[in-house]
Amino acid sequence: MSDMDAENSEREGGAKLWGGRFTSGGAGTNALMESFNASIRFDRRMWREDIQGSKAYATAISKVGVITPDECEQIQAGLDRVAADWEQDRFDILQSDEDIHTANERKLREYIGQVALKLHTGRSRNDQVSTDMRLWVRQRVAELRGYLVEFIGVCRKRAEEEIDVLMPGYTHLQRAQVVRWSHWVLSFAWPMKRYVEQLDEIAARVNVMSLGSGAIAGNAFGVDREALAEDLGFNGVTENSMDATGDRDFVAEFLMWSSLVMARLSKWAEDLLLFSSKEFNFVAIADQYSTGSSLMPQKKNADSLELIRGKAGRVFGHSCGFLMTLKGLPSTYCKDLQEDKEMLFDGMDTMHAIVQIASGVLATLTVDSEKMSSALSPDMLATDLAYYLVRKGVPFRDAHSLSGSAVALAEKSAIALSSLTVEQLKTISEVFEDDVRSVWNYTSSTEQYSSTGGTSRRAVQEQVDKLAAWLTSPAPR
Amino acid sequence: MSDMDAENSEREGGAKLWGGRFTSGGAGTNALMESFNASIRFDRRMWREDIQGSKAYATAISKVGVITPDECEQIQAGLDRVAADWEQDRFDILQSDEDIHTANERKLREYIGQVALKLHTGRSRNDQVSTDMRLWVRQRVAELRGYLVEFIGVCRKRAEEEIDVLMPGYTHLQRAQVVRWSHWVLSFAWPMKRYVEQLDEIAARVNVMSLGSGAIAGNAFGVDREALAEDLGFNGVTENSMDATGDRDFVAEFLMWSSLVMARLSKWAEDLLLFSSKEFNFVAIADQYSTGSSLMPQKKNADSLELIRGKAGRVFGHSCGFLMTLKGLPSTYCKDLQEDKEMLFDGMDTMHAIVQIASGVLATLTVDSEKMSSALSPDMLATDLAYYLVRKGVPFRDAHSLSGSAVALAEKSAIALSSLTVEQLKTISEVFEDDVRSVWNYTSSTEQYSSTGGTSRRAVQEQVDKLAAWLTSPAPR
Amino acid sequence: MSDMDAENSEREGGAKLWGGRFTSGGAGTNALMESFNASIRFDRRMWREDIQGSKAYATAISKVGVITPDECEQIQAGLDRVAADWEQDRFDILQSDEDIHTANERKLREYIGQVALKLHTGRSRNDQVSTDMRLWVRQRVAELRGYLVEFIGVCRKRAEEEIDVLMPGYTHLQRAQVVRWSHWVLSFAWPMKRYVEQLDEIAARVNVMSLGSGAIAGNAFGVDREALAEDLGFNGVTENSMDATGDRDFVAEFLMWSSLVMARLSKWAEDLLLFSSKEFNFVAIADQYSTGSSLMPQKKNADSLELIRGKAGRVFGHSCGFLMTLKGLPSTYCKDLQEDKEMLFDGMDTMHAIVQIASGVLATLTVDSEKMSSALSPDMLATDLAYYLVRKGVPFRDAHSLSGSAVALAEKSAIALSSLTVEQLKTISEVFEDDVRSVWNYTSSTEQYSSTGGTSRRAVQEQVDKLAAWLTSPAPR
Amino acid sequence: MSDMDAENSEREGGAKLWGGRFTSGGAGTNALMESFNASIRFDRRMWREDIQGSKAYATAISKVGVITPDECEQIQAGLDRVAADWEQDRFDILQSDEDIHTANERKLREYIGQVALKLHTGRSRNDQVSTDMRLWVRQRVAELRGYLVEFIGVCRKRAEEEIDVLMPGYTHLQRAQVVRWSHWVLSFAWPMKRYVEQLDEIAARVNVMSLGSGAIAGNAFGVDREALAEDLGFNGVTENSMDATGDRDFVAEFLMWSSLVMARLSKWAEDLLLFSSKEFNFVAIADQYSTGSSLMPQKKNADSLELIRGKAGRVFGHSCGFLMTLKGLPSTYCKDLQEDKEMLFDGMDTMHAIVQIASGVLATLTVDSEKMSSALSPDMLATDLAYYLVRKGVPFRDAHSLSGSAVALAEKSAIALSSLTVEQLKTISEVFEDDVRSVWNYTSSTEQYSSTGGTSRRAVQEQVDKLAAWLTSPAPR
Repeated sequence: MSDMDAENSEREGGAKLWGGRFTSGGAGTNALMESFNASIRFDRRMWREDIQGSKAYATAISKVGVITPDECEQIQAGLDRVAADWEQDRFDILQSDEDIHTANERKLREYIGQVALKLHTGRSRNDQVSTDMRLWVRQRVAELRGYLVEFIGVCRKRAEEEIDVLMPGYTHLQRAQVVRWSHWVLSFAWPMKRYVEQLDEIAARVNVMSLGSGAIAGNAFGVDREALAEDLGFNGVTENSMDATGDRDFVAEFLMWSSLVMARLSKWAEDLLLFSSKEFNFVAIADQYSTGSSLMPQKKNADSLELIRGKAGRVFGHSCGFLMTLKGLPSTYCKDLQEDKEMLFDGMDTMHAIVQIASGVLATLTVDSEKMSSALSPDMLATDLAYYLVRKGVPFRDAHSLSGSAVALAEKSAIALSSLTVEQLKTISEVFEDDVRSVWNYTSSTEQYSSTGGTSRRAVQEQVDKLAAWLTSPAPR
Repeated sequence: MSDMDAENSEREGGAKLWGGRFTSGGAGTNALMESFNASIRFDRRMWREDIQGSKAYATAISKVGVITPDECEQIQAGLDRVAADWEQDRFDILQSDEDIHTANERKLREYIGQVALKLHTGRSRNDQVSTDMRLWVRQRVAELRGYLVEFIGVCRKRAEEEIDVLMPGYTHLQRAQVVRWSHWVLSFAWPMKRYVEQLDEIAARVNVMSLGSGAIAGNAFGVDREALAEDLGFNGVTENSMDATGDRDFVAEFLMWSSLVMARLSKWAEDLLLFSSKEFNFVAIADQYSTGSSLMPQKKNADSLELIRGKAGRVFGHSCGFLMTLKGLPSTYCKDLQEDKEMLFDGMDTMHAIVQIASGVLATLTVDSEKMSSALSPDMLATDLAYYLVRKGVPFRDAHSLSGSAVALAEKSAIALSSLTVEQLKTISEVFEDDVRSVWNYTSSTEQYSSTGGTSRRAVQEQVDKLAAWLTSPAPR
Repeated sequence: MSDMDAENSEREGGAKLWGGRFTSGGAGTNALMESFNASIRFDRRMWREDIQGSKAYATAISKVGVITPDECEQIQAGLDRVAADWEQDRFDILQSDEDIHTANERKLREYIGQVALKLHTGRSRNDQVSTDMRLWVRQRVAELRGYLVEFIGVCRKRAEEEIDVLMPGYTHLQRAQVVRWSHWVLSFAWPMKRYVEQLDEIAARVNVMSLGSGAIAGNAFGVDREALAEDLGFNGVTENSMDATGDRDFVAEFLMWSSLVMARLSKWAEDLLLFSSKEFNFVAIADQYSTGSSLMPQKKNADSLELIRGKAGRVFGHSCGFLMTLKGLPSTYCKDLQEDKEMLFDGMDTMHAIVQIASGVLATLTVDSEKMSSALSPDMLATDLAYYLVRKGVPFRDAHSLSGSAVALAEKSAIALSSLTVEQLKTISEVFEDDVRSVWNYTSSTEQYSSTGGTSRRAVQEQVDKLAAWLTSPAPR
Repeated sequence: MSDMDAENSEREGGAKLWGGRFTSGGAGTNALMESFNASIRFDRRMWREDIQGSKAYATAISKVGVITPDECEQIQAGLDRVAADWEQDRFDILQSDEDIHTANERKLREYIGQVALKLHTGRSRNDQVSTDMRLWVRQRVAELRGYLVEFIGVCRKRAEEEIDVLMPGYTHLQRAQVVRWSHWVLSFAWPMKRYVEQLDEIAARVNVMSLGSGAIAGNAFGVDREALAEDLGFNGVTENSMDATGDRDFVAEFLMWSSLVMARLSKWAEDLLLFSSKEFNFVAIADQYSTGSSLMPQKKNADSLELIRGKAGRVFGHSCGFLMTLKGLPSTYCKDLQEDKEMLFDGMDTMHAIVQIASGVLATLTVDSEKMSSALSPDMLATDLAYYLVRKGVPFRDAHSLSGSAVALAEKSAIALSSLTVEQLKTISEVFEDDVRSVWNYTSSTEQYSSTGGTSRRAVQEQVDKLAAWLTSPAPR
């Protein structure tokens, strides 16, 4: 029997808050349907935000006279007790608690009696749940931002410390040109910085209050939404209640952003999985991020990196799934939207964990600079050979072709490109002279790339410096 | 603190079964990493299949002398005790139990001592987990097949009983032609029958045994895989160990199939949501599949249908996510594949529940045949009017155009199409005669469609009969 | 024979620019492979941007002495001639023109001879194509922004003009509360405004120059990238060459954004398809955005809306497909990235067209305010009835329940909720008094919702005013 | 100006076949809308199937007296002339030709006059287009099956010829155990065989005739659909007209299948990209499937493999996109479904090309068996060392642990595992004896895996033989 079935068989419906017009008061709901309809199993995670929102709402309706100051105080105190129950993990969830809103209000009533029944005046679960989610996302996104910044910090640190390590740069997974290891490290810091900027943009859109939109038409008791928003730390209010109650773009936007970040991290993990294979052997992943095999005693697997790469699918799945749920829905709230939370929660948890694991992997791996430099081969200087000719006046296209011929000659002669004698080179072009030997130096090869963003020592150091400056700048509010 | 965080903070690593070559015996794993690496939280659902596979494997290795008959008996008895623990919900999971395989083997050792250490001989978690999953999917798919057949049965029953109810058929959500309600009902029975046939095809591919593939190279102790497969009720064995250990097509295939079924059910739910709106009012969803509003007392919402439609996204998300996880992976087992289980489990649970809910909704809804027939309007007979002309020898394209002119004339005159006098019709074409009035009959309109698959009474009854015959045929083995 | 096959059979390889080290000079490529490898069939759309980038690059390398001022002038003049060929649609594409870069350089060489061979010095197709794409996207995104703003303008106009039209507001596709038609119209203007803001953020990330990143390591000739960026109108330069050459986040980001916008438009189209059905009949889509049926003469289908809804799939597909392509790729340029362009181009074209069609549909549809108001029913005032009680001191939860009982009583008595006598109401609660009749007024119902974002006349007018102000503000640079 | 814009600006509407009830006869359609509405640009590919279906339909309606035998003959002859026009590439498409059905019928009328207007009697474009597509898919799927079989044939051939080549088998991209190269090759033949079987199942579902379903209600002229199906080579007829006209599962099913195949090929390509990197160097991709670099003269990139891997995204995108289009649509035909064709066509073309390219790559690559065998290392025999102990009576778990200790000892001593002396080994376990040296043989390592599906020579030869037998079996009809 699955967990779900178990849950079903235990269930017995109770009267629902919306049951007035139903013969059975809503108690006759089909058990399987009820288990799918209820969200308390997962939305309980937002208990804190639900109470936060209710406390502010109570203040707001007391300001317009819907409740008296005294009633307001009772509600505040009661909600504090409910919060304490959650905090101390002693909140008992009942069968009739469909969702966190219902549960908290039920408990409030147990504590303060009839006054509790006034709290929901002019509010709907439609605007309530949207507000809870926005508060929840705001908080978790702020934490996530910190983890991203931490990853960038680790990049910066390694890049600075290991700036003199050279490695083969690959395109098409073929050795292309000599680059600095730090250059590779930083090639992930910059996209991560862009993701932080995107996240800040998303956070700004999340931090807008939908409370006061009611079920669809708005708030009928003249609540001052701007004041309420300020009270809850929102930067503004939604401008149209029909839009606000059905809008889940902030969830979709976060999940799509997460998919993009995970696609990037899957690339990063792929690189490191290659680099840590026996064939490359450039880096060793720390034991604490590796595992072994139940069959093969010699194995050490970089499971952490595979999990990062694999979970790119999980997060992308949530993003696709939620877009699918949204597609073709009519306006305003439909029950379909309840699918938002599990995808959001799991997506958020995954991002929190994955980014931290990535930082840990990067901070603890060890680099084998000798293996890296022994993987450099003279044919990777073929471009340099062409540039040598360019500097002697040969048009680049011709130089490229002549260098290609030198590569072919070396291959045919089964010797390294750098072992071709000047005489041999002269059979290809008269322009070659003794000074061609200056080409065969990996470090000076990198030093050519001194324009912004290049792999020369100075250019890489500049990247480090810029990131260091950015890392000390404050997050936007 | 999220559940995940909670789990992390509690965790303290223990020595791992694969820890031989690790300095710390695998105990030093990063906590967050360990929590992501471990699968026991979800793969415990396969405890029964894991034990089933181990029992059969013990027999297989006893046959080739790896263990003695006596050792085999000890293992069988020990595994039965482990199973009883699970059955009676008293299996205590330890921190060091990475996954269900590790947990069961650890417990077995507690019960029977050193002999337990022989069970894994020649086996790897790579072929073990694949086998467990195939056993699990086989069982759950068989149950799911039953739910699908049940849905088709409900369709057949309603279609037979309500065969005389007429309703507007829509294309582009515009009234098109008169059809029988039963014809609509059956238009979902047929695709569901196709899905059952697809599921049978998938089940046949699932029911192939991968056990004996080891980690990658096969089984080194000459185990008779064909006999082992027969013992476990598999129809055959996988033919290549490198394929077998990394293959998760059966998961992907099931999830894609589920997405297709859910897309169909989203269409069905959309139709019924429209039909149950005040504007259509053709059907009423039973209270037990409806809910109310926390704000608006008059509301009765068909949440069940919205959940079905919405969960099309959830299942599709798993399908997309898992394909993404598979993409670009190198051969054989990689840790990325661990993502398979949560998507599979949730997808399977969702399908089980949704199909049952759909059957329940269909079995309990009530049809308002009067509302349906009052929604029929004479302009829906415009095709019939064209056919009237065709039967008098007018080429169809001309007839279509003349009928269109009649529609335009009626619209201009603000009367029903059927209210045009023969004189008015003759201004459009001389072919119209007094017998045109025979066109204005909705029932005889449907009776024209007597070819196979049409909406005439007899053609619909034939559908019912064919389905009834199919419903009594046995499932393939 | 498919177009593709046709292309293959004609093809005969020519020597390639990269063929130096290949025995056959690259001429021996498999025909099918070559047809899949070549991108000229679609990347020719970027001819203008390719030339723009090359002209600026020529200037940049002349500044650092790679070419002389005279050579630079020849190249500029030559490129202008190439541009003129494209402009006048007389550019002849050859078999050996793999892509737009190769094609333009080949033609340049035909015009100015050997000097042309110097243009590519220090540049790679890797940074060239990225730059071309960024220029192309920048331009097309600016146009698209205009179309979005136009849509919002149409919303604002209709909302202002038709502010007094009332309609049923729906949640769960069930009649919920009375709202203004303008409120519905504006509920799409606000998300579109958010999409414009997101698009501006994306545009800022697009408008960063990757030229000067070379194949992977940077630029080896000391090109002043900041000056080059300014010359091309970019706001800045990429900071890491390994990141820059393989980065396609701007494509992914645009496609994901497009998916989100299309999901929104699919909702809008769904609403209007419902509203234009015979059952709702609230609006009529203009003939110019409708089509008929080849079989049924009376049909008028809102195909435009169905295309909008349907193409949500197309655009989403590109977004998913491209993320899948990116997943798990190793760093820097891989040929896989060539998949970016067709998805981007088709996604951009679709967005351009769809947004314009949506504006056209909205600008030309006609509203039937009578049908809308006749769809308002007293039970939609059940919330107002509850609020009536709240205003008399009944706690909301009780008021909700009492109002629910009134709904049930009216339903049982088969009369409208508003037809219940005060006596009947008093059987439910003594609080009901004669003034309850004031509740039964649809306009005053809407006027309650006067908080920001509500559906009262003033609150809706405020939305109109805010949008009007925003519409006159300039786009960010 | 984009192609699309170009098309728009030229366009000028003509009267439409469905225009009877429209004031303008359908000529006033908005230009952009018209360009998006028309499908002739892409559905012209189905001209042959459209004519094939029409010829059969003409026969069918002549049998029931809707047209005379003479009229039927005229139509047949006329359609043959239309077919000849297409065949000889001289069919002139007009602005008013919305789609291939309209175009062919218009042309037929030009050839045979008024009689042409009778062809469409009782038929709708809804059942016509579905039938055209089923015919088209049937044909192309049969071709595709051939390409898949060819790939499997290449696998079989290489596997047989190179059966003695050993290579490292990898799990988690780490060297795991010794396997035969042929075993790797065949590990893709088996899944491809499964895909062929799935494709056969799909083909059976495609090969069912929907013609005679009309727009929604069926065929009103008593057409014998079973005879018509036989005439067109279909295996049966659809059983419900409402299902049939809106059903596109065969498109979705094909695209999902394609996604799965591409996910597999992306894995195959990934393996080969690794194997052809300098670091592995196991295989060399033939020049005809490789390209070079415009900047780096030494580069040879396996672009063919990267395209295969990259196009996994393209095909997956179509699959996702189409599911999204289907989601939430109401029953029967909606214009949204027009999105089916471009995704289907491109998906089919891509599959045709990719599978052929994959066969070509595999048939022409060269294997460096020395590099492969020099990549084998003694630590890959750690499992064999454990098995050595198992065969001496040590329980496997202990043996695994002891072997792990040996690995650790060798690593600590910086020598190969096989270089540990018996004395050194005895410090780990007394069970080690002189005969341990027999473990250090790669070939005999593979020979242990003799159970079905293992990597021993005989077991691999068995795979070859089974595939050879299957390859000669005929395709199902």
